Amino acid sequence: MPFGMIQLSPDTAMPDFHHAYAWAAGYQYGDPTIMGFSHTHFSGSGHSDLGDVLVMPIAGDVKLDPGDATRPGSGYRSRFSHATEVEQAGYYAVTLSDYGVRAELTAGKRIGWHRYTFPKGKPAHLLLDLRPSIYDYDGKVLWSRLRVRDDGTVTGCRLTNGWARGRELCFAMRFNQPMTGRTLYNREQNVPYKGFKGPGNQPQDRNDQNGRALEAVFDFGALGKPLEVKVAISTVSADNAIANLDTDGKGWDFDARRREATAAWNKVLATIDIDGTPALKTQFYTALYHAFLSPTLSMDVNGQYRGPDHQVHQAKDANGKFDFYSTWSLWDVYRAQQPLMVLLRPDMSTDFVRSLVAAAKDSPFGILPVWAYQGLETWCMIGYHAVPVIADAYVKGVRGFDAHEALKVMVASATYKAYGDLADYMKLGYVPIDHEPEAASKTLEYAYDDWSLAQMARAMGGSATAATFMKRSTYWRNAWDPVTGFMRAKLSNGKFREPFDPTFAGYGSDYTEGNAWQYSWYVPQDVPGLIEAMGGKEKFIAKLDATFDAKVDPAHFKNVEDITGLIGWYAHGNEPSHHMAYLYDYADAPWKTQQRLKQIMDTQYAATPQGLAGNDDLGQMSAWYVFTALGFYPVAPGSDVYAIGRPFVPKAVLHLAGDKTFTITAAPFDGLHPYVGEITLDGHPLRQPFLHHGDLVAGGTLHFTMVARPPAGATAGDAR
Amino acid sequence: MPFGMIQLSPDTAMPDFHHAYAWAAGYQYGDPTIMGFSHTHFSGSGHSDLGDVLVMPIAGDVKLDPGDATRPGSGYRSRFSHATEVEQAGYYAVTLSDYGVRAELTAGKRIGWHRYTFPKGKPAHLLLDLRPSIYDYDGKVLWSRLRVRDDGTVTGCRLTNGWARGRELCFAMRFNQPMTGRTLYNREQNVPYKGFKGPGNQPQDRNDQNGRALEAVFDFGALGKPLEVKVAISTVSADNAIANLDTDGKGWDFDARRREATAAWNKVLATIDIDGTPALKTQFYTALYHAFLSPTLSMDVNGQYRGPDHQVHQAKDANGKFDFYSTWSLWDVYRAQQPLMVLLRPDMSTDFVRSLVAAAKDSPFGILPVWAYQGLETWCMIGYHAVPVIADAYVKGVRGFDAHEALKVMVASATYKAYGDLADYMKLGYVPIDHEPEAASKTLEYAYDDWSLAQMARAMGGSATAATFMKRSTYWRNAWDPVTGFMRAKLSNGKFREPFDPTFAGYGSDYTEGNAWQYSWYVPQDVPGLIEAMGGKEKFIAKLDATFDAKVDPAHFKNVEDITGLIGWYAHGNEPSHHMAYLYDYADAPWKTQQRLKQIMDTQYAATPQGLAGNDDLGQMSAWYVFTALGFYPVAPGSDVYAIGRPFVPKAVLHLAGDKTFTITAAPFDGLHPYVGEITLDGHPLRQPFLHHGDLVAGGTLHFTMVARPPAGATAGDAR
Repeated sequence: MPFGMIQLSPDTAMPDFHHAYAWAAGYQYGDPTIMGFSHTHFSGSGHSDLGDVLVMPIAGDVKLDPGDATRPGSGYRSRFSHATEVEQAGYYAVTLSDYGVRAELTAGKRIGWHRYTFPKGKPAHLLLDLRPSIYDYDGKVLWSRLRVRDDGTVTGCRLTNGWARGRELCFAMRFNQPMTGRTLYNREQNVPYKGFKGPGNQPQDRNDQNGRALEAVFDFGALGKPLEVKVAISTVSADNAIANLDTDGKGWDFDARRREATAAWNKVLATIDIDGTPALKTQFYTALYHAFLSPTLSMDVNGQYRGPDHQVHQAKDANGKFDFYSTWSLWDVYRAQQPLMVLLRPDMSTDFVRSLVAAAKDSPFGILPVWAYQGLETWCMIGYHAVPVIADAYVKGVRGFDAHEALKVMVASATYKAYGDLADYMKLGYVPIDHEPEAASKTLEYAYDDWSLAQMARAMGGSATAATFMKRSTYWRNAWDPVTGFMRAKLSNGKFREPFDPTFAGYGSDYTEGNAWQYSWYVPQDVPGLIEAMGGKEKFIAKLDATFDAKVDPAHFKNVEDITGLIGWYAHGNEPSHHMAYLYDYADAPWKTQQRLKQIMDTQYAATPQGLAGNDDLGQMSAWYVFTALGFYPVAPGSDVYAIGRPFVPKAVLHLAGDKTFTITAAPFDGLHPYVGEITLDGHPLRQPFLHHGDLVAGGTLHFTMVARPPAGATAGDAR
Repeated sequence: MPFGMIQLSPDTAMPDFHHAYAWAAGYQYGDPTIMGFSHTHFSGSGHSDLGDVLVMPIAGDVKLDPGDATRPGSGYRSRFSHATEVEQAGYYAVTLSDYGVRAELTAGKRIGWHRYTFPKGKPAHLLLDLRPSIYDYDGKVLWSRLRVRDDGTVTGCRLTNGWARGRELCFAMRFNQPMTGRTLYNREQNVPYKGFKGPGNQPQDRNDQNGRALEAVFDFGALGKPLEVKVAISTVSADNAIANLDTDGKGWDFDARRREATAAWNKVLATIDIDGTPALKTQFYTALYHAFLSPTLSMDVNGQYRGPDHQVHQAKDANGKFDFYSTWSLWDVYRAQQPLMVLLRPDMSTDFVRSLVAAAKDSPFGILPVWAYQGLETWCMIGYHAVPVIADAYVKGVRGFDAHEALKVMVASATYKAYGDLADYMKLGYVPIDHEPEAASKTLEYAYDDWSLAQMARAMGGSATAATFMKRSTYWRNAWDPVTGFMRAKLSNGKFREPFDPTFAGYGSDYTEGNAWQYSWYVPQDVPGLIEAMGGKEKFIAKLDATFDAKVDPAHFKNVEDITGLIGWYAHGNEPSHHMAYLYDYADAPWKTQQRLKQIMDTQYAATPQGLAGNDDLGQMSAWYVFTALGFYPVAPGSDVYAIGRPFVPKAVLHLAGDKTFTITAAPFDGLHPYVGEITLDGHPLRQPFLHHGDLVAGGTLHFTMVARPPAGATAGDAR
């Protein structure tokens, strides 16, 4: 479901940390077998975790791993063929060839729905494995519980020492047909508790179990109809999971649930109607689907959720109840995925902001999430990019949250001295590399975040806060080295660190997942200032061209797995590059923006299993695609301005809040007319390649007249 | 506090499992140092756990253990002298000589109160260690959390893999003076998180921490007045612990809290007034104090508690709210400690019964606790002795609980086939040793439990249930071997297991912590039947004498550490013997009961550090003392009859419910008159050495005329 709590999908592997990057979502297209179906996954993350509540249907004899096995092995895997797969938004099906079982999955907001059709006459089993995790290692499962209740409901919880340390996830599971038997295993002891005679005198017919390596097999005998399974999860308790199941998971009608999921997806995907070839539509709506996956609901039907303090909270603020969302890959999604939601679903943005503010208030530090999921913090990546998410929403008119409360936690996040060396940043105007790693990136990103904070403060009329953070937004200049022409890290003594290699990325560098060629463009809040620093528009364009046109051996970044999708130094596979193609607009060379975008769209996206150039990062890569396909992009979220590129669809109709419609057309739309000749908004020519958010949400029509060659004079600096 | 949630006391060691038996309460008199003060302890258990939230005041420099230390070492221990100790009900003080710190402890219902007086001018610290446990081993702490909140409140939780598997205990701690500094350590990494630069970008000024080996030092500088500390615990959450602290732990007045604790203890100890020497009073009231320690409150101020299903529940039943108690050493306390509460505090018994019934309803198995603490089950020992606890209360007139609901879970417990081989017991009439260990003990104890259930069912008018369980109460006969004259275990084929050694106890034997000499007397529900089986009163007495008079090398039981306090085969240090001295009463030889009781009282109790002959077992050994000192004992709880022995106090006044007073006098009371000549109840001679509960609670006077020698003819079988 869009933003759903459940991400039920097949796992071909639960990789250990050596292989986690490639298997971050549990499924790799090249793998020949499926291990099971688990209920929680990240969409395109770089680091990983989850893979909770893995189940596997088994027909016939159950083959467990031999011996003591605290980590799952190959015992119950099945081969499968991609030819048997059906992948749709809200539905997945595959045939497990070793068992002859047809597996179908769909989901409700908090429920995973399964339907398993077993071969006739073979005894049906469902295996439940609480041992495996995505990004697995010995000792990752700290503790788990499993229980079969009198009414046949299976409940459990597990506490894992994962990316979010000490994460507890509970579940409740029901079947549409009665169990004929069950065995709960504690694989640390290689003894099914059925026959276990341990210390003391516990019941041998164990219907509950505690331990670090629990596995269970539920038997159903030969079935006359498919086995349906429904599973609810909760970050709070097994009882809450049951309540979620009772409320959100009524009845037994897999097909109806599938229709509901399809309808929910159709509803959000219909926010944008495009014309185009089937291939184009597949690619566009796949991207839009990705953009609607996170943040994810992380709250039970009773409004309880687990916060970053690991305590249980109630989702209620000054404006009343709200839905609490987590899964915040903020270093990524503040750029385009969250702005896309502000445009398409401002109602959702309201609850996203309220969730961020609530998380800050629940935080032991009183600061906004950095990289959070299931309510818990991982401290992954840099910056305080929840700030531009909130600022962008506010500046673009999203309301329904307590802006003063929000501003308070934004300021708290931007001034928490012990975080990312903000103490030095505030004192020196930059993060010194002898005190803090990746200092140049931090200085640059803090300065942008500060600018976005100032935009919101100013819009709210708070001139003192606005002035403070506007001043801080200029600190990018402290990273600018006019001698080398790159953004660099300084030492605390004020001198740039030597030696300096603008191509170097990786451990110990001045940058976060990047090098000087990539990070020197990161002043989205003041591109004119950057142009000036770089010596004017011509030099700026020349350096930007040099960045895109450099000859770079991909092996150069072999130690930094995130830097992918290379076009010269430009790395579309990683977020720091995402605004770069649009920067030509600011130097009066929009035709070069158009050219670079075509270059990127042609080479970095494909509706194939390996279609993305890098991690989708919870929808950011896909949101970039959606914006770019529509013809504009939020270079600096927190501003209401979009930079215009060119459409990659012939027609798009945006169905916006308040029944407003915004239509984008491009003609002639073919491979022979890759440049924009003229742009009209409601028939009036646009003089600059920029668009205001207000123009969009008011409704209207944006028409692009496409041309074969850059307009006359454009190559010397187009000043339309 | 009586039945308090907190048991705050010094720990001289947190022993590993090799030494846990001797250090089961954390404190051993012979130890020269104190490691700290922790908040949870069992009183005289055989197995152990707890030792939660250990703190240690430190004056001057803090010496941490060197290196990575996931288990606490000697770094912060201090020497102490017993001469500096003050031990009172509700108060403990000691001087920690290495630091010159005077430590004082008292407690509220849910709060541990500390007062530490530091030497002038030395910086004061409080160390908090979440690593150690009583009965410790590597990996016992599965996970823990620690947080310093903005207002200086320290909160935390830890999950341990202990006796109760997967137990979470949370706490909240406050100080009467502000911290000047703090450091939170994760000792698994040997890095204080203050300076830790780990993955990602987490705040370095960590005010929270997750991990398996957390330790913290709170600094207070040189103090002008003593440091006071208050600590609340909760089995539910840190937030609940804070609520407990807010509600039950107001203000800062250690002396007032100490006075409250003293008053609470005086109130319960004043239930019985005795005359006697100071030494006698010390011994008597020490025993009475022990008997008022458990079960312990296991519920937060909002009525929430953690149940055996590990879920959070609300203490509310058909009769409304109640206090939920746990710490149930039921194999022990059903014998005398719980009956003593029924006599002295039937109001408490009401909530004890409601707690047991609630636990059964929360149990994954729907059965009553076996050995539970903090709401969780350990499955330690045998039988379903919550049944006689409830039956005894009901039969003796305790009300205020839903008796029908209670009877339902009593029957459920007595018929749960997969528990302790009840399946065979119900089918064969005994537990077969080839299917289940310690089978003879189980058959005997089940039969008694069944009888007690029948008593309650009959009293409630349920004749069918009463008949079923009365029949089962005769199953002791299936363990009786007339050939050898002992209770023995049969095989499932109906034959007694061979070879047979009536002196053998230990792994693989027919019995639980006992041998045939000890267990053959276990038919408290039908002593006349046992006498008949043994060939009549004379043979019965002769065999009982042989049991007490046997020459037994204590080394015989060196592998069964619980079998201690030997008088022949009689083992006063363990519960199966506790009713034995009273059995002479049933064979018309009460003078022999009197003689044996004197022998036991003279040798098995002393008001000294090693004064008890074995584990107090949560007050059972002490309750035996209290009953016996008063002159009577509940041989078969579930019946309203007490067997009379002889008083060991010259006068006792029992202040019972409804302002009733029952007075016991004995004269002449001296060492020269150890036998009972005549007993009068309200002036009327008693013809039999038995007393009814109704006689006691109605109020009255029981007078013992003591004599120098057994009455005439008594040695041939006294038939008064």
